[in-house]
Amino acid sequence: MSEDISQRIEQLIRSDEELDAARYAEVAEDLEPDQVALLLESLPRDERQECWEQVPEEQRVDVLVEMRAEARAPLVKELDSRTLDQLISGLDAETLIELGESLPDDVVDIALARMDERQRAHYERSAQYDEDAIGRYVDHDLLILPQNSRVRDAERLLRREVPEYTTHLWLVDRTGRYTGAVPTLSLFGKPDHLPLVDLIDDEIEPLSALRSLKEATEAFEHAEISALPVVDENGLLLGRMSMRLALELLHEQYESQMMASAGLDEEEDLFAPVMRSSRRRATWLGINLLTAFLASWAIGLFEGTLQQVVALAVLMPVVASMGGIAGSQTLTLMIRGLALGQITAANMMPLLRKELSVGGLNGVLWAVVIGIVASWWFSSFAIGVVIALAIVVNIAVAALSGVLIPILLDKLKIDPALSGSVILTTVTDVVGFVVFLGLGSLFLL
Amino acid sequence: MSEDISQRIEQLIRSDEELDAARYAEVAEDLEPDQVALLLESLPRDERQECWEQVPEEQRVDVLVEMRAEARAPLVKELDSRTLDQLISGLDAETLIELGESLPDDVVDIALARMDERQRAHYERSAQYDEDAIGRYVDHDLLILPQNSRVRDAERLLRREVPEYTTHLWLVDRTGRYTGAVPTLSLFGKPDHLPLVDLIDDEIEPLSALRSLKEATEAFEHAEISALPVVDENGLLLGRMSMRLALELLHEQYESQMMASAGLDEEEDLFAPVMRSSRRRATWLGINLLTAFLASWAIGLFEGTLQQVVALAVLMPVVASMGGIAGSQTLTLMIRGLALGQITAANMMPLLRKELSVGGLNGVLWAVVIGIVASWWFSSFAIGVVIALAIVVNIAVAALSGVLIPILLDKLKIDPALSGSVILTTVTDVVGFVVFLGLGSLFLL
Repeated sequence: MSEDISQRIEQLIRSDEELDAARYAEVAEDLEPDQVALLLESLPRDERQECWEQVPEEQRVDVLVEMRAEARAPLVKELDSRTLDQLISGLDAETLIELGESLPDDVVDIALARMDERQRAHYERSAQYDEDAIGRYVDHDLLILPQNSRVRDAERLLRREVPEYTTHLWLVDRTGRYTGAVPTLSLFGKPDHLPLVDLIDDEIEPLSALRSLKEATEAFEHAEISALPVVDENGLLLGRMSMRLALELLHEQYESQMMASAGLDEEEDLFAPVMRSSRRRATWLGINLLTAFLASWAIGLFEGTLQQVVALAVLMPVVASMGGIAGSQTLTLMIRGLALGQITAANMMPLLRKELSVGGLNGVLWAVVIGIVASWWFSSFAIGVVIALAIVVNIAVAALSGVLIPILLDKLKIDPALSGSVILTTVTDVVGFVVFLGLGSLFLL
Repeated sequence: MSEDISQRIEQLIRSDEELDAARYAEVAEDLEPDQVALLLESLPRDERQECWEQVPEEQRVDVLVEMRAEARAPLVKELDSRTLDQLISGLDAETLIELGESLPDDVVDIALARMDERQRAHYERSAQYDEDAIGRYVDHDLLILPQNSRVRDAERLLRREVPEYTTHLWLVDRTGRYTGAVPTLSLFGKPDHLPLVDLIDDEIEPLSALRSLKEATEAFEHAEISALPVVDENGLLLGRMSMRLALELLHEQYESQMMASAGLDEEEDLFAPVMRSSRRRATWLGINLLTAFLASWAIGLFEGTLQQVVALAVLMPVVASMGGIAGSQTLTLMIRGLALGQITAANMMPLLRKELSVGGLNGVLWAVVIGIVASWWFSSFAIGVVIALAIVVNIAVAALSGVLIPILLDKLKIDPALSGSVILTTVTDVVGFVVFLGLGSLFLL
């Protein structure tokens, strides 16, 4: 699919022809709304606006829902009031939840006023849950029956058009509390008057609306079902969540983690305006500058030594970078372990022992190699010894920090995948420079 | 769930009591096989072996299947021949495919000899596909009917026990070619003699066994179905793939990408033996050492200058690291874009222009800040000017490399998420040092 999208982007940008409805229809033939969204996001902002104007009106809401917030906002802003009006009439609760962040508050109010009462109630309930909670993403389109229904009631319901991923019917009591799930397949060959409660599948555990999206994905890896019921604190059946949504959310979660590790936002637009993009990235650069100055300050402590033994200045990056790499290997293993819940106070010591041993072995190995190269390069045995010692110490410190920093961050409820690497390399830089230049001051002056 | 696992790990390691079957049963109560696998992986190797011996025999195969290969191999190796014998009797094709890499070839042969003929045929077909192909992971447990069947045949089939995620029946012609999918829900209220072909859902496109796992995940994001049929090159129905498997594979894929970015393997065991772990990580450290020496060599070109202006040595890390961070921001945006198929020859120029503008703005901003700090620190206006110029140049080069390096790697079929960052920082280090020290030589001597 992704290659297919690339070709269509080429077709759109390359052509000299004016983009009209006919040519758009040709390029976007057979595309699903999320693919159109991706196509739009791949275009520079002016071309994007032109192309957006050709998207058929009936597809526009679905496309907007799939777009990243930052790319979506200007398209919504440019809509004239008549189109906006059409767009917000007849939205369902889930769509308004998704679009909400890109719509001005007054437009959300109008959309709510236009909604039918039932959808508005759904919206208001979903909006109470925060962005990471299952309750916010509940799908309200599902087949519900009173718990005293019989097989014939179920069969009557199933003869109508059913929502996607319908594999179960959900039973509720008179107050709307969830009482059980009946697999549709269990109905085959059953007598008409059999009560549905006799067919309930006890293995199915409803999701709690308050739990996190991550827990929903975990549940789907165990439940053998394509959509799970979602209940609130009082056991009321709010709706369901599909595995497809869990898949999509997992995708987004990983994407945002990758982006966050470079100080970026998942909603970031490929063609964001230069000013906005610069401002956002400046923060991350500023944080990094502080850590870089810290490293410089460490070097500055040894100005006198550097002046006399300039070889130390030349070799500094080797010490710092070997520590950084060794540390990041341990850190990565720890981040995975923490995400899986594998790291506890009880196995921390054996883990630390193992990582220190690995660090020790690699430290000695590479210290010898680097020592020999440095001795030969600067024709000084002493320089070789100094850098070799510094490498051993820095790789050991790196292993230690690689284990302890993520545990510490996790205890402080900071995501180690996000800031672990900045802190780690600051430690290995500063320690590396101080040990290397310190040893140099002792032995080479 | 992950917190729950942590508690059980604590329980297992903390206790002074001998681990016997009763205590294991208590700790591992209600755990699914993948959770037991995770529990085992979280234990140091000796404790792991002890704990493994308490896992009930009937659960062992399922647990082994879920484990990472490196943690699994020693457990399999330690099995006595009687237990191994029990373990490999009655394996199905999918399980043997998964376990295959941890079993010695002769054991695989014995397992194959013990399999029933049908499963062996499945195994041999799956094993032909390579590790990234859908065909390798086909699930053979599904409901198939001849294409001339009628509603009553389908209902008869559905009254028996059905495999998980059964939402459709699959029709094949006399030669086994896939002819269509019939939604089980469409059977309700239909006359017994109605041919099933009249109920085929045309929207369902079978997956080709040769395509990649990534394409399977993409298909599930569009198809409104929890398991898709898989066909071979000739249209023969091989089996199906469930969305649950796609979810699991997506998880693994991201994990292995994260691990690979630090030169690690997804199958890496948290408690791998020190020697093996050291050897594996040494390669990555070695590659990094070469790039570090490259940076040292660049610095070495300016030994004379450094001797006279030691402030340059002190400030070197600032220039290199600002370039590295700015570049990695662009790189990350590009890696996401490439993964989504968003980057093409046609939109590369506007993208480059945007990234250079962002880099230019941030370059100038931070150049001024750093220039002022450096001037004040070393009481020299000239040093401030030199470092400011170097920062502007290095951040611009970083933006340029951040766009071009991933595109180049992608063209060469190398995953930019894997090696992009090593190459990028080498470029920003070398360019940063050369420009900074070069300008220093010109203006400060």
